[in-house]
Amino acid sequence: MHDLIKTRRSTRKFTSKEIEDEQLNKIIEAGIWAPSGLNNQPWKMATIKDSGTRKSLASLTHYSSIIKGAPVLIAVFLDANLSYDHTKDVQATGACIQNMLLAIHALGLGGVWLGEILKSKDKVSKVLNAPENLELMAIIALGHPAEEGDKKSRKSVEEVVFLNN
Amino acid sequence: MHDLIKTRRSTRKFTSKEIEDEQLNKIIEAGIWAPSGLNNQPWKMATIKDSGTRKSLASLTHYSSIIKGAPVLIAVFLDANLSYDHTKDVQATGACIQNMLLAIHALGLGGVWLGEILKSKDKVSKVLNAPENLELMAIIALGHPAEEGDKKSRKSVEEVVFLNN
Repeated sequence: MHDLIKTRRSTRKFTSKEIEDEQLNKIIEAGIWAPSGLNNQPWKMATIKDSGTRKSLASLTHYSSIIKGAPVLIAVFLDANLSYDHTKDVQATGACIQNMLLAIHALGLGGVWLGEILKSKDKVSKVLNAPENLELMAIIALGHPAEEGDKKSRKSVEEVVFLNN
Repeated sequence: MHDLIKTRRSTRKFTSKEIEDEQLNKIIEAGIWAPSGLNNQPWKMATIKDSGTRKSLASLTHYSSIIKGAPVLIAVFLDANLSYDHTKDVQATGACIQNMLLAIHALGLGGVWLGEILKSKDKVSKVLNAPENLELMAIIALGHPAEEGDKKSRKSVEEVVFLNN
């Protein structure tokens, strides 16, 4: 577990090999098992394989080559109809996304959390025909990795913990 | 991994057995390895073992018995000085918290994500002498489980995915 968390990397280049439905299902299920306040499970998702749709989404972000090159995208939304506390619900979507990224890594696949596309969130919703109560939280691009992924560093525990009481 | 995600439960009752520093370190390190936008790592943490401090915090939440009964608390904050996009930074703290909950579970310990105490976040900050740039995001209570934890259900993949494109 610890190694899995520490070896996960953002993968931005993918081979053309497809993701099996069973794998995709497992990844989404991992997201669904994230905790949420009052267990409200405030997320909704869309899975995108169609290359035309990926092309449309690619035009809405600086990272168009990732969107076009990934065999699958998972768009994660916050459902206002299920929301009870915006901060806690947004945190829950973060936990949900992280579970999916870990599941992707555990399956030997690669993925990346795309947030920059939120600048075009309303247009993304239009492309995906998302109901009005859904607000885009992130898109995960995933596939079989064609690169090792960048190894970003992290601060030390001492830098992050301001109080040991 | 998948099993670990699915078998994690909220633990609210703990034995008096302490958590080793090495374990606590590992848990916090798992949190630190969460992804964040621009790798800004917007979180700060406080660890609390002192029973007097736990008593003060217990008075600020409905869930005082959990706070008093847990040998360790980890308070997670968002650092406004490191923040670049509120939504994305709040999501990142959610990913960070989820990594810690998974690490707790992987170590055979139990923990629970406490959000209700956010209603008293300014008072919590005072108790912990947190700098003004820090905003409380959650408290994790953890320890050796004295109960099995509640088994909450989840929606099915079909209920969560509104579009397979």
